[in-house]
Amino acid sequence: YRDSAYHTWLACTHYLRGVRDVYNYLTVTDNRLLSVLPSSQFTTIPHRAPAPAPAMALAMKRAAATAVRAISSANSASILTRQLHASAEKKKIVGVFYKAHEYAEMNPNFLGCAENALGIRNWLESQGHEYIVTDDKEGPDCELEKHISDMHVLITTPFHPAYVTAERIKKAKNLQLLLTAGIGSDHVDLQAAAAAGLTVAEVTGSNVVSVAEDELMRILILVRNFLPGHHQVISGDWNVAGIAYRAYDLEGKTVGTVGCGRIGRLLLQRLKPFGCNLLYHDRIKMDQELENQIGAKFEEDLDKMLPKWYSGDVWYPQPAPKDHPWRYMPNQAMTPHISGTTIDAQLRYAAGVKDMLENYFKGEDFPAQHYIVKEGELASQYR
Amino acid sequence: YRDSAYHTWLACTHYLRGVRDVYNYLTVTDNRLLSVLPSSQFTTIPHRAPAPAPAMALAMKRAAATAVRAISSANSASILTRQLHASAEKKKIVGVFYKAHEYAEMNPNFLGCAENALGIRNWLESQGHEYIVTDDKEGPDCELEKHISDMHVLITTPFHPAYVTAERIKKAKNLQLLLTAGIGSDHVDLQAAAAAGLTVAEVTGSNVVSVAEDELMRILILVRNFLPGHHQVISGDWNVAGIAYRAYDLEGKTVGTVGCGRIGRLLLQRLKPFGCNLLYHDRIKMDQELENQIGAKFEEDLDKMLPKWYSGDVWYPQPAPKDHPWRYMPNQAMTPHISGTTIDAQLRYAAGVKDMLENYFKGEDFPAQHYIVKEGELASQYR
Repeated sequence: YRDSAYHTWLACTHYLRGVRDVYNYLTVTDNRLLSVLPSSQFTTIPHRAPAPAPAMALAMKRAAATAVRAISSANSASILTRQLHASAEKKKIVGVFYKAHEYAEMNPNFLGCAENALGIRNWLESQGHEYIVTDDKEGPDCELEKHISDMHVLITTPFHPAYVTAERIKKAKNLQLLLTAGIGSDHVDLQAAAAAGLTVAEVTGSNVVSVAEDELMRILILVRNFLPGHHQVISGDWNVAGIAYRAYDLEGKTVGTVGCGRIGRLLLQRLKPFGCNLLYHDRIKMDQELENQIGAKFEEDLDKMLPKWYSGDVWYPQPAPKDHPWRYMPNQAMTPHISGTTIDAQLRYAAGVKDMLENYFKGEDFPAQHYIVKEGELASQYR
Repeated sequence: YRDSAYHTWLACTHYLRGVRDVYNYLTVTDNRLLSVLPSSQFTTIPHRAPAPAPAMALAMKRAAATAVRAISSANSASILTRQLHASAEKKKIVGVFYKAHEYAEMNPNFLGCAENALGIRNWLESQGHEYIVTDDKEGPDCELEKHISDMHVLITTPFHPAYVTAERIKKAKNLQLLLTAGIGSDHVDLQAAAAAGLTVAEVTGSNVVSVAEDELMRILILVRNFLPGHHQVISGDWNVAGIAYRAYDLEGKTVGTVGCGRIGRLLLQRLKPFGCNLLYHDRIKMDQELENQIGAKFEEDLDKMLPKWYSGDVWYPQPAPKDHPWRYMPNQAMTPHISGTTIDAQLRYAAGVKDMLENYFKGEDFPAQHYIVKEGELASQYR
């Protein structure tokens, strides 16, 4: 877990507390009921799970902040910085995306796969740049390894990430720019990237709506106990009781977000008409006007937001192996990191990557919020 | 399909049209992708599906209206009417609910099962009434059949309905009152009930919020293509492309409800912050102020609301047999009629049934909106 993973988790985790009922879930009767819930509350993390317990999360946050400071100061004395070239030099750009096979041609806007490669091949090649695209990213003999030594730019997504380790950075003598088509830099060793003077950037904001919608869906799926019912249908069963004994309305419940950044706010906004008691926890309380607008109250005590149910989307490593224990957790609604790769998000992050490449070729700056590391310096929001 | 089923369908069906993309779904690659979508729209019925096509639905609506008029007029000349007794006579009340077995004791508010029997046993028996409860409701030798001849009241739920046929009504010489714990009378032969002078009532409104929440969840599940992703996780697979090529944000799409009654309005209210283009179709256009408040525009042309994707919850018969074709429809998010039986809805409908029984014992009227048939006369909203 790196700092950005933690922040994403912070922004995306949620907490649900029933206020009407006393829940006495005492027995595990199928693999979907979690455990004893001893109090009149139930909680869920509908995203980025299993997440660290709040106390651990706070410790992680402190550790991450320390690490970030260390990188920042170490970096000011960096031996090597690589300025982004403003020259008309032809660049070698490598894109690592998931292969879509038969799905690639099914939707012209399905830009995030290796075959469609963000829809920028013709544009890049018409300018004389080389554009290598692969999904083969692991191990010493993979396709990616063949291009590491001479690539200038590496583009990847959080959904099928090229892991950029210190070792790979060391080999990548020409590398200047690491772009995330989407949001996140968990796959990059940021300390090594900063020390090597690289620039790391993402398309900030490109999937906040996608993820906020996804959150609300997962809250509803867990609270309303949707999955066991659907599984009964497709497996030939019929047992209303096995669903209804722990299916709830969302109305009237307490829902809190741990973190209230852009995703948290979009989520709370969407929760408003559900008639819930909305809470948020964050490092800083919002001003009263914004609180009123969002309709959520500040909850200072993070320990009141203990998660019990899980629904997450982000894994390590990705793809997750068949025996990854999260696959077989009880009472979950996990998916294979898809929440931020809707077609709409793909259109946004493909456009964002193209814009940044255009800036890069011209030697211009990116939009400030997209930077994670700028020419070896951590972006201000990470300091 | 009876009139009330149609109305429920009318209130609960929805329509989604993409406004940003051209969708070219040309191949069926797994059992979840439906079929060719030839235009720039995609649509869904997240509830009560498979539903009749709109043209058929309109024909059904006309037929239903005719039938209702026929019942109303036939009934004014009814041979037999059974006035609800105001006497202190002891009543035999039969409740038909689903058995919960091990789940019954897991939640004290799980009132809708046979074991917990709406939580009214002590109250009924303390007043000297007899309360028979069973889940055994089918065939000539079932437990229900043994009590038909002398029961005064039959309570059942839409989730495990006791089918009240003309034949059963004929046998039920003492029967006065048919109560639905929940909403709906699809399980009752209303014509026969009216002709026999019975009263049929439901707990109107007890699960409109439950169903509206459920609708929004199903829209998100289908639009965001949640289920194939979750199924990959639990089955050990990992194929982001197989999900992402047809996963969309809800934002910016056109969402319409076919019918805009209580459920439709609650749904539209909850959809408002999603940034969709909201439409509704109904027999009557709402006044401008209400339209503005709900944020949806009237769409007169029902043919523009053709459904393509399905997610439903109500079946016939219930329980559905293992070979029911709806179980194996492609691209669906069906459940075994649970949307209106959340714990919160159970608390509301159990309270509503108790209130009506209390009225019945005292010879008082029910709340007007709960009547479907009142002492042989169809309630005004059905005329």
